[in-house]
Amino acid sequence: MSLLAIDLGGTKLAIGVFDENGKLLFSKEDSLGGRKGKEVGELISENIISIFNSGYSPVEAIGIAVPGISNSKNGTVWAPNIPGWDNYPLLEEIRKISGDIPVSVESDRSCYILGEMWQGNAKGTGNAIFLAVGTGIGAGIVVDGNVLHGANDIVGAVGWMALHHPYREEYVQCGCFEYNASGIGVAKMACQYIAADQQYSGSLKSIGAGEITSHDVFKAFNENDPVSVQVINNAVQYWGMAIANLISIFNPEKILLGGGLFGPAIKFIPAIRDEAMKWAQPISAQQVSIEPSLLGSAAGIYGAAYLALQSVQKK
Amino acid sequence: MSLLAIDLGGTKLAIGVFDENGKLLFSKEDSLGGRKGKEVGELISENIISIFNSGYSPVEAIGIAVPGISNSKNGTVWAPNIPGWDNYPLLEEIRKISGDIPVSVESDRSCYILGEMWQGNAKGTGNAIFLAVGTGIGAGIVVDGNVLHGANDIVGAVGWMALHHPYREEYVQCGCFEYNASGIGVAKMACQYIAADQQYSGSLKSIGAGEITSHDVFKAFNENDPVSVQVINNAVQYWGMAIANLISIFNPEKILLGGGLFGPAIKFIPAIRDEAMKWAQPISAQQVSIEPSLLGSAAGIYGAAYLALQSVQKK
Repeated sequence: MSLLAIDLGGTKLAIGVFDENGKLLFSKEDSLGGRKGKEVGELISENIISIFNSGYSPVEAIGIAVPGISNSKNGTVWAPNIPGWDNYPLLEEIRKISGDIPVSVESDRSCYILGEMWQGNAKGTGNAIFLAVGTGIGAGIVVDGNVLHGANDIVGAVGWMALHHPYREEYVQCGCFEYNASGIGVAKMACQYIAADQQYSGSLKSIGAGEITSHDVFKAFNENDPVSVQVINNAVQYWGMAIANLISIFNPEKILLGGGLFGPAIKFIPAIRDEAMKWAQPISAQQVSIEPSLLGSAAGIYGAAYLALQSVQKK
Repeated sequence: MSLLAIDLGGTKLAIGVFDENGKLLFSKEDSLGGRKGKEVGELISENIISIFNSGYSPVEAIGIAVPGISNSKNGTVWAPNIPGWDNYPLLEEIRKISGDIPVSVESDRSCYILGEMWQGNAKGTGNAIFLAVGTGIGAGIVVDGNVLHGANDIVGAVGWMALHHPYREEYVQCGCFEYNASGIGVAKMACQYIAADQQYSGSLKSIGAGEITSHDVFKAFNENDPVSVQVINNAVQYWGMAIANLISIFNPEKILLGGGLFGPAIKFIPAIRDEAMKWAQPISAQQVSIEPSLLGSAAGIYGAAYLALQSVQKK
C-alpha cells in the first residue's frame, strides 16, 4: 500500500511515501523559495501528480500536515507564515487532482502526536499529548483515541496558558506561557535580564541585545552563565507547570516534548518532571510518562502518513 | 419512552424518570442516612426495582451519575465521600437486576455538561465545558461531541491547575486553583487574611476562625467588608485565568459555571469574563460564551437521563 504524506512548513515542503507498516519508501524536500498563496498550492499539486506518475502508484490515500489551522468544516487552511494563506482552499484544490483518493488535512501539531502514536514514543496509547516548543508553543492532543479539534479547530493553543498573575501587557501577542518559555521567549527573557543587570559581564553580553537566540542561552547555560541559568530555571518552572495542567486536565498516558527547544532542553526533562509532579493531580501524575519525541522533526510527515492510513481504514 | 436517571450524591440519592424529550415524568429523593458501602448499592437497586414495578415500566435505559470517578474499563466507582466506595462494583451490581436494559455510569461532572447539552445552556453545541465550583472544583468536558475520559477516567481535575508560582506546600491536598477559588478555598483564604490583619474588625471577625463559610464571605462582600473584597477579587482572578486556559486549550463554544458557588458568584461573571479575555487565545476567546448553568443542581440527573438516552440511540 502507498500512502502519500505531505508536511508543509513555513519555508519548505516535505513529501514522503510510506507503506501501511510505517516504512518510508520515498522522501524528498523542496524549499518554498519565497512562494506565496496559490504558488504554494501549485507546488503541492505538482508533487502529488509526480508521485501519481511514479512507481509508487497507485496511491491509496493522501495526508497533509499544515503549519497553522486546518478548518475541518470547509477544508481551508490558515497558515500565518505563508503569505496569502489566510483562508486557503487547500482541500478543494487537492481534490481536483486526487479523484476518488481520500485526502485529509490536519494542523502540524495534531500530526506530531499522530506520528508518535503510529511509529514513535506514543505507540499503543489512546491518550497522549505532543507539546511542541519552538519559536512558539502548541500541543497536539489525542483523548480516548481521537485527535481533538474544538469548535473551530483551534484546540491546543497552550502557549496562551495563564501560569502567573497579574496579567502583563507583554502577553498580548503570544500568551503568558509562550512569553516565558518558547524559543523567542527564552531569548527575550535573557535580553531583559541583561538590561536589568548592570553588573552582568557574561558571554551573552558580547552578542547584540536583539541578536541573542535560545541556542545562545542554552550554550551559555552550559558555561554557568548566571543570566542563562536564571532564564532556563524560569522556563523549566513554566514547562513543569504547563505539563502539570495538561496532566490534571487530560489524564494522559504520555506527554511528549518536541519542537526546536527539545532539542537542547531534553536534558532538563528530569527537572521539568519534578516540577510537574508537585502541581499535578496526584493519581494522574503517577499514570503519565513524560518523554522526548522519538521522531523529532519527522513527526509531522509520519503523522500525515498516519492520517492517510486512518482514512483508508475508515473507508 | 421511559429513561431512568439516578444522581448519587455524597449524602442523598435522586431518582428521575424522563421521556426522550427531556420531560421529567417522576422524581424522588432519598437521604443516604449514613449508609455505607453495599448499603448504598442496595438503596440504588431497590429504587430501580421499584421503578420497574411502577407505571413507568418498561424502562428503556438507565443512566447513573456518581460523585467521583466511574472506571469505564470495569464499571467500578471511586466515590471519596461514600465510605467503602473505593472500587465499588456498581455496574456489575445493577446489571444483575437490569437484564437487557442498557446501564451507563459517568462521573457527576461529566453528567453536568451532558445535562446542559441536552436540556440546558449548552443545547446544540458539541464543544462545551461545565466548570463546577463547590466545596471542590472539577470540570465535565465535551469536545467534538464526545465526553472526555482519559487514560483512567480522571479527566477534568481542573482544581489542580497551576496558576501562580512558586509552588506552596498548602497545594498538596487540593491543587493551586482549588486552594484559591473553591468554596473551602474562599473560606480558608478569608481566615488567613483575618489572621494576618490585626486591624481588621469587619463582620467576619465575630465568626469563629474555623467556622467561616464561603456563604459568609459572599454576604460580607455585599457589605463591602475589606477582607471579603480581597478574597473575592483574588478568586475572580483565579476563575478568569482557569477559564482562559480552558478556552485556549479546548476552543469551546460554551463554558458553563455551576456548583454551589455559582450560586452567589453568578454576579461576578462579567468580571470573570473580563479577566479570562485578557489571557486567552484571542480568536478562541471571541468564539466562546461564558454563562451560568441553566439546570443548577438538576444538571446531574438530566445528564444521567441523557446518558440513558444516548445508550438507546447507540443500540
